[in-house]
Amino acid sequence: MEEVLVRYSKDQIQKARKIKAIIFDVDGVLTDGGIIYDNVGNEFKKFNVKDGQIISHLKEQGILVGAITGRKSAVVKRRCEELKLNFHFHGVKDKLAVYEKIKAEFSLNNHDISYIGDDIIDLQVIVESGLGVCPSDAKLYVQKYADLICYSAGGSGVVREVADLVLASKGLLENIVKGYFSRT
Amino acid sequence: MEEVLVRYSKDQIQKARKIKAIIFDVDGVLTDGGIIYDNVGNEFKKFNVKDGQIISHLKEQGILVGAITGRKSAVVKRRCEELKLNFHFHGVKDKLAVYEKIKAEFSLNNHDISYIGDDIIDLQVIVESGLGVCPSDAKLYVQKYADLICYSAGGSGVVREVADLVLASKGLLENIVKGYFSRT
Amino acid sequence: MEEVLVRYSKDQIQKARKIKAIIFDVDGVLTDGGIIYDNVGNEFKKFNVKDGQIISHLKEQGILVGAITGRKSAVVKRRCEELKLNFHFHGVKDKLAVYEKIKAEFSLNNHDISYIGDDIIDLQVIVESGLGVCPSDAKLYVQKYADLICYSAGGSGVVREVADLVLASKGLLENIVKGYFSRT
Amino acid sequence: MEEVLVRYSKDQIQKARKIKAIIFDVDGVLTDGGIIYDNVGNEFKKFNVKDGQIISHLKEQGILVGAITGRKSAVVKRRCEELKLNFHFHGVKDKLAVYEKIKAEFSLNNHDISYIGDDIIDLQVIVESGLGVCPSDAKLYVQKYADLICYSAGGSGVVREVADLVLASKGLLENIVKGYFSRT
Repeated sequence: MEEVLVRYSKDQIQKARKIKAIIFDVDGVLTDGGIIYDNVGNEFKKFNVKDGQIISHLKEQGILVGAITGRKSAVVKRRCEELKLNFHFHGVKDKLAVYEKIKAEFSLNNHDISYIGDDIIDLQVIVESGLGVCPSDAKLYVQKYADLICYSAGGSGVVREVADLVLASKGLLENIVKGYFSRT
Repeated sequence: MEEVLVRYSKDQIQKARKIKAIIFDVDGVLTDGGIIYDNVGNEFKKFNVKDGQIISHLKEQGILVGAITGRKSAVVKRRCEELKLNFHFHGVKDKLAVYEKIKAEFSLNNHDISYIGDDIIDLQVIVESGLGVCPSDAKLYVQKYADLICYSAGGSGVVREVADLVLASKGLLENIVKGYFSRT
Repeated sequence: MEEVLVRYSKDQIQKARKIKAIIFDVDGVLTDGGIIYDNVGNEFKKFNVKDGQIISHLKEQGILVGAITGRKSAVVKRRCEELKLNFHFHGVKDKLAVYEKIKAEFSLNNHDISYIGDDIIDLQVIVESGLGVCPSDAKLYVQKYADLICYSAGGSGVVREVADLVLASKGLLENIVKGYFSRT
Repeated sequence: MEEVLVRYSKDQIQKARKIKAIIFDVDGVLTDGGIIYDNVGNEFKKFNVKDGQIISHLKEQGILVGAITGRKSAVVKRRCEELKLNFHFHGVKDKLAVYEKIKAEFSLNNHDISYIGDDIIDLQVIVESGLGVCPSDAKLYVQKYADLICYSAGGSGVVREVADLVLASKGLLENIVKGYFSRT
């Protein structure tokens, strides 16, 4: 998967190769940060099918996938359940505490984890995790703490991009793609 | 329609000239991949009027138009019915099997069919069909299998672009446009 | 209003100066062509506040404002009523016939009217009207029939752009802007 | 916060340093100007989580935050309440009058206030306030009256950009960011 890996540095690829869990913030990562309200109290969010399509492959390869979000939203819970994430935490004010709990529960080290976040509440986990990632449209003062600034903006396939990098760095993406050619 | 054809290669135009059926994936092709959820279980998708406006012309010219989608969605069913597609298959896991069924039912060969898809689940049909197409925002490792990478991104008129190319390559688009000038 | 007029040709400005009525298509002009569906039969469209804010000024200056749309949609009717358009016709298959009816009813000539449309169904009226306009994202084979290809894409202020041009060409925009400075 | 301040002029930074209140228009500032309607009378607007995340920090630093909007919308009221704005005025035709009332009530001078607006109804308050701001996609004849034309377009974090500038100019943003690293 040269066409995937060619866009990242040696250091980013080495870090990606070690990843056993991809954890992400939701607003600004799975979405473009948009919160749609109506006049009778409902909330709407726009997710991207490209992110969802890779998650079953990550899990088949034994890579954990989960979300930590600072907001509480029925919309987000529904998307997390549909994606069959290994875990998802909502209304989290201290993301590092939850991150440490996840590490303990799944016996993970920092270098096993890629964390994707887009704002200051994510900074400490971005720094702690082995592959700290932010979308291309994160604030500059968030970007400077990330190991990887995605080519994708929030909501346009950020998790897909990280998943592709992780799978390609491990030599797994090629086989996943090939698998779609032998299905008859 | 020099202004349409000038943007494509000789090979793409030759392949387009043979097309008797345009079949497409929905999420990422008719849409930008966006899946909008609310907090009470509804789903929303955004389609583009430009795609719809050409489909009746395709059908008038005897070109079949249909959809094969991996998801099951009442929203998509509704749009397919509104577009009066010749066929639409939902919740399809093995797209090649459905593609072969369509070929048999309508007595079509591979070179008669243009298939438009944006992700790995579409790859095999993209490769099999005579004019395999993906939107401009498909993953690079999908793009490399397509005969045609559209100028349009998913949701901004991908089916329209392919329809225009097919109709122009057959010399039919000029007459369709002229038809709008003699309507009084 | 040099900053407005500098972006248009002498010919476009001369045509704009004569305009007594601005008439527009809806999908692809007031919107980006997006049609949002849910799973229970509702339809949604996204309009732009920038278009709405200028319409009352056009009407104060005696310029008629109206819509002709090929689709029938409760959403569009509601927006047209909110904008207090002088007239709006829905579900129109033959736009030229309606255009001629409007000309007769309001004693207008072709050179009095600017018509804004984005697709082949609009072509004949674009050609007939004194200032035929399309958005920047109209198909190339529509663009070539327009007197003016807007800088704005559908849904991002196309009507506002034409209104600004028409008002500025008549020397009226300057006074409208000044009016906002003497309101205390 | 060199990476924030480097993008603004000395004059803009000096003006930002004095700001004790940030007041903004809603449509075209908190949103991209989009008004979404359905077929049964509901209205929808899309806000950005990036704007919301900074407002609690502004208030902690003693900076007032409020909105003045020309429209009346239950959607906007709901967002203003969620953001816990210090004040929000709806359906305002004469924005300068409300602006003067706010100045009197909170004992503020013009140079204490940054006002963000995107259209002609905002012009007089943009000119009066100490740091008059508009989004990057405001009309050119609005932009020319602003002290600061944002890098961000309406709906993509305009209030966040102004908040970051104001906080960075006062030397406060660095500490806010650092605060996210000592939370365990």
